[in-house]
Amino acid sequence: MKVVAITGKQACEIVDRADPRIKGDFVKVAIRSAPMCTEVSEYRNGSIGDSLGHEAAGEVVEIAQPGQVAVGDRVVVMPLYGCGKCRLCLSGEHIHCEHGVDPYQFCGSQTGRATYAQFCIKQDWLLVPIPEDISYDHASMACCGLGPTFNAMQQMAVNALDTVLVSGLGAVGLGAVVNARCRGARVIALESNEYRAALAKKLGVEAVVDPRDEHRLERIMELTGGCGADKSVETSSADTAPAFLIQATRRKGQIASVGWGGPMMAREIVGKGLTIHGTWHWNHFRDTQAMLQTIRQSRAMLDQVITHTFPMREVKKAWELQMTGACGKIILHPWD
Amino acid sequence: MKVVAITGKQACEIVDRADPRIKGDFVKVAIRSAPMCTEVSEYRNGSIGDSLGHEAAGEVVEIAQPGQVAVGDRVVVMPLYGCGKCRLCLSGEHIHCEHGVDPYQFCGSQTGRATYAQFCIKQDWLLVPIPEDISYDHASMACCGLGPTFNAMQQMAVNALDTVLVSGLGAVGLGAVVNARCRGARVIALESNEYRAALAKKLGVEAVVDPRDEHRLERIMELTGGCGADKSVETSSADTAPAFLIQATRRKGQIASVGWGGPMMAREIVGKGLTIHGTWHWNHFRDTQAMLQTIRQSRAMLDQVITHTFPMREVKKAWELQMTGACGKIILHPWD
Amino acid sequence: MKVVAITGKQACEIVDRADPRIKGDFVKVAIRSAPMCTEVSEYRNGSIGDSLGHEAAGEVVEIAQPGQVAVGDRVVVMPLYGCGKCRLCLSGEHIHCEHGVDPYQFCGSQTGRATYAQFCIKQDWLLVPIPEDISYDHASMACCGLGPTFNAMQQMAVNALDTVLVSGLGAVGLGAVVNARCRGARVIALESNEYRAALAKKLGVEAVVDPRDEHRLERIMELTGGCGADKSVETSSADTAPAFLIQATRRKGQIASVGWGGPMMAREIVGKGLTIHGTWHWNHFRDTQAMLQTIRQSRAMLDQVITHTFPMREVKKAWELQMTGACGKIILHPWD
Amino acid sequence: MKVVAITGKQACEIVDRADPRIKGDFVKVAIRSAPMCTEVSEYRNGSIGDSLGHEAAGEVVEIAQPGQVAVGDRVVVMPLYGCGKCRLCLSGEHIHCEHGVDPYQFCGSQTGRATYAQFCIKQDWLLVPIPEDISYDHASMACCGLGPTFNAMQQMAVNALDTVLVSGLGAVGLGAVVNARCRGARVIALESNEYRAALAKKLGVEAVVDPRDEHRLERIMELTGGCGADKSVETSSADTAPAFLIQATRRKGQIASVGWGGPMMAREIVGKGLTIHGTWHWNHFRDTQAMLQTIRQSRAMLDQVITHTFPMREVKKAWELQMTGACGKIILHPWD
Repeated sequence: MKVVAITGKQACEIVDRADPRIKGDFVKVAIRSAPMCTEVSEYRNGSIGDSLGHEAAGEVVEIAQPGQVAVGDRVVVMPLYGCGKCRLCLSGEHIHCEHGVDPYQFCGSQTGRATYAQFCIKQDWLLVPIPEDISYDHASMACCGLGPTFNAMQQMAVNALDTVLVSGLGAVGLGAVVNARCRGARVIALESNEYRAALAKKLGVEAVVDPRDEHRLERIMELTGGCGADKSVETSSADTAPAFLIQATRRKGQIASVGWGGPMMAREIVGKGLTIHGTWHWNHFRDTQAMLQTIRQSRAMLDQVITHTFPMREVKKAWELQMTGACGKIILHPWD
Repeated sequence: MKVVAITGKQACEIVDRADPRIKGDFVKVAIRSAPMCTEVSEYRNGSIGDSLGHEAAGEVVEIAQPGQVAVGDRVVVMPLYGCGKCRLCLSGEHIHCEHGVDPYQFCGSQTGRATYAQFCIKQDWLLVPIPEDISYDHASMACCGLGPTFNAMQQMAVNALDTVLVSGLGAVGLGAVVNARCRGARVIALESNEYRAALAKKLGVEAVVDPRDEHRLERIMELTGGCGADKSVETSSADTAPAFLIQATRRKGQIASVGWGGPMMAREIVGKGLTIHGTWHWNHFRDTQAMLQTIRQSRAMLDQVITHTFPMREVKKAWELQMTGACGKIILHPWD
Repeated sequence: MKVVAITGKQACEIVDRADPRIKGDFVKVAIRSAPMCTEVSEYRNGSIGDSLGHEAAGEVVEIAQPGQVAVGDRVVVMPLYGCGKCRLCLSGEHIHCEHGVDPYQFCGSQTGRATYAQFCIKQDWLLVPIPEDISYDHASMACCGLGPTFNAMQQMAVNALDTVLVSGLGAVGLGAVVNARCRGARVIALESNEYRAALAKKLGVEAVVDPRDEHRLERIMELTGGCGADKSVETSSADTAPAFLIQATRRKGQIASVGWGGPMMAREIVGKGLTIHGTWHWNHFRDTQAMLQTIRQSRAMLDQVITHTFPMREVKKAWELQMTGACGKIILHPWD
Repeated sequence: MKVVAITGKQACEIVDRADPRIKGDFVKVAIRSAPMCTEVSEYRNGSIGDSLGHEAAGEVVEIAQPGQVAVGDRVVVMPLYGCGKCRLCLSGEHIHCEHGVDPYQFCGSQTGRATYAQFCIKQDWLLVPIPEDISYDHASMACCGLGPTFNAMQQMAVNALDTVLVSGLGAVGLGAVVNARCRGARVIALESNEYRAALAKKLGVEAVVDPRDEHRLERIMELTGGCGADKSVETSSADTAPAFLIQATRRKGQIASVGWGGPMMAREIVGKGLTIHGTWHWNHFRDTQAMLQTIRQSRAMLDQVITHTFPMREVKKAWELQMTGACGKIILHPWD
């Protein structure tokens, strides 16, 4: 199969690799949509390797045994691998599994973990069936595009009466906007990239505040009647972001962090009576219907957030574009 | 009236001050039980002044107008003063009120804010009526003794199936133990003070781990099947405590911070999928019945946690005792 | 003051009555907007009397003592009177108070309970302050117009991903539509009155099914992918309505009943794993901000639901109109 | 294999039947503990047949393919069969699956559905692994013994501050007592059978009221400070039970029905602001840890509730005992 490989600093190629092999509850999926996530930093730095990407939607092309999916099923491929037997996996939280499983060792395969590739392998219980009325590109947003911020919405019960502050408008932050707007919330955002700020405005964000603006807190207070946002979502991973969100969120409000950067001080969390949620992915046992409904109701927004798609062979062009910052979510099509 | 005054470094006196005056919805309360909290640090450092204490239970002796309480009512006095009109006050969260009110200016009084005194003043809606079957000493624990950790239990829905880790066994931490044990939870604690560790054991704490023990994390993991505690409560205000609780709490678990010390890193909160609650006080509109029920069901434990009571005139003896650390909660009786 | 009196079968007059008197925490309110509710049945049947109406918004014109409101404040008047001291009143659920209070006996007044009148009296803690940007007519919808169904939404956590079935499109049912649409939900309704069905369509209801249609269940199943509605609200008080909603709601779904008619069978509730909420009014301690936000965000819809306003002296015209069924909510203006 | 057959009115035999066959995700389980449930009514009436029982715990003895369990695993067998692909099955609510699956047709088997047998068959995702420290008899209580009332506790968030009223002390009602006591709640029960009332007292039930007592409501009000129970669980399936629980539960309280009998009137649910939960089984994806923890913490109570165990060949003796009512839960051992 064809696979993307980084061959040097900002250098890459399409290479041939063995098709992956499966066993047990592992399933072979032909990837139709491979959304691009943080791999651009490996391209930028020249981390040589041919195992890239963790997001995908595609078609089941081979199963090793009867199970939850059949050949021909259209599915979203959840990121990572869980052991399937621990408390976390059994309750739909495989992303936090303490054990994991090595798919290569279990299946005797040398490939299949990457999604910048024509095939990948995954346990059947980590595949979410895609209803007929949803396209592969839209469905693939149920990975990092919409996933972690969808969970933030669920955890904070974001609804149409809320003002939500989104910190960072990268692909994940734009997903937060889609999720919050889909639920009818009023959205304010923090972002300095003008392209993304403009894109967010088209999605219905009321105001985008520049985090470099020294009056950024005053700006948000003006927009929220002096109280701060009801609920905030951190997606920028900037070290200063969590502390700023604590200031910009109202007393007794909530913050969900998807970003991994920075500290929060207990004294400020206690003083304001805040609740903070760490959210990495979503629970596909409990919330699949709500996720699919989100995608259905957000089609027009998703078409704006997915600013570009490329055949996988043009991945270099895609990465170069990502480095400019003048894009939303980019999706690769491995078979085009 | 008689009032406690700090007159120098570890020096104090009982002084006479004018009785407080009331107006509007403010009520004059004769204090029967004044629990001691963090005032000991002012005594230790010699912060000269005569306005000490923020916890009390007592009897309504004067009202300025008809309202929610009558003369003769037995009441718990909530700490601080809220404006009574903002979103936070109206929903029972006056502790987070952004406006506050100056009781002296409003009432034209020169005293009444302190509780190391024979009288205090408070708005009627910040007084919780005490049922006949509950004593003043026990009722006064609804302030800082049981209050903030009661709220932690409510926020985390602590129940009999949980293992709860309590960090710090000062008066607030011992209150956390009472709250968690009252709800049937299994409790583990972190504390180096041997007196308090022994007291906690009597309250049913299964194990007390010394936070200075280099194997403290392994100890907690052994006690929790290798996962960490389901829910943790931080009361020590030590700067390293929040970070340690993040390590010692299971994935997808919850932490409530009552303590004001230290940072938490977003990457760890996200990586483990934790929820963090900042909790300062409890909601006396929503949860009064549950608080009173907690007190009723915890009588024997409260009698152990309240290790000492003193007539207010012996406050020096009380503070000297507090400084040894060989005590639980101490209550002053201003009229004895 | 001027007051509406029913003087016979479909006969009424405006009469003069003494202004109400107040005491303690009772406040005198000049009524600006008096929404009409079920009093039409008394008019229809000729229940002679001059104490009509329980919904109002108006201006505080007199207080007996300082408290939560001041003269000049614009307020919504909550229906009924609670004792103010029981568990239910203290937690914002005065509508379920077991004790109540007789305002006439307490205040020594002979009037003030009715809202088809120029003045009414109410305890200050049962008045919800109206922000400047909300009109009296809109604010008055926080009584029966939007109130009980707002509570239904809160109890069921209705959000933009739900399909909500509203049974009955009287003034309360239209309020359910406003509440559900404000939260972004998809709404289906059951109603035979064509005027109201047409009005609901203008509010964004996707389909109105006639409850007399023998294929009504099939119709709803077609509209909901064969599953039934996620969440249903019963407002018709028809005896057959609850049983039908049980059929028309999906397994593990929720039903809120605002209507008082009919039985539900345990075997069907268990068989489908349903949750049923009885909801009479809303909690104005906990949820005032959400209610005001609902009103703010629903202005255009409220202007459609409030189909008519009349000076109070034209109440006969208003009742005659109500009897035709060709109206939404009607509001009387006592001072016009 | 050996199987129980009813051969006439109160007549039964142990018969030989073919061992069941498996395919796909179906697993063959050697049943070690088969709790007896409502099959006694078939025995009483002489419903001739050899497919009896739906509760079991046992050992996996054969799998058709790798999956969530391995040969030798000790498991609880969930009742019924779900399709495994619908919204309900995927979220752990297979009991409400609209599709189901016919295990005989799927596996080409003629046996395996019954649990009064030496082997049964079940999909691997409907098997709950039993930790080493829990016996088969105790684990088998995770079916109807503790299951539906465990779910009632989860739905109502029963905790140590609650007074819970349990209606009916059959095997399911005794399970409600165990669940509520395990969570530290105070329990009151309604039951006329003296054996079971006495057994409940040993489990810590404070008072058992006879439902035939004309003062039964007054009795419960006396026990609950005049308010009624906080939360009630109906397990008797008596037609009058739901209406009585509505009377005996406090305003704004909750009722969970496990019993299938009788109506509830909307006007009473609304008037008291109640929430009603229909609960059939529990969610073994979401709540397995809490269920296992319940079993661990209730060992002494379970040993009292399981009043008798019999080798399966003595099933006649077991049924005759069940008909006397002088028993709690009875468990059959198919291999003894």
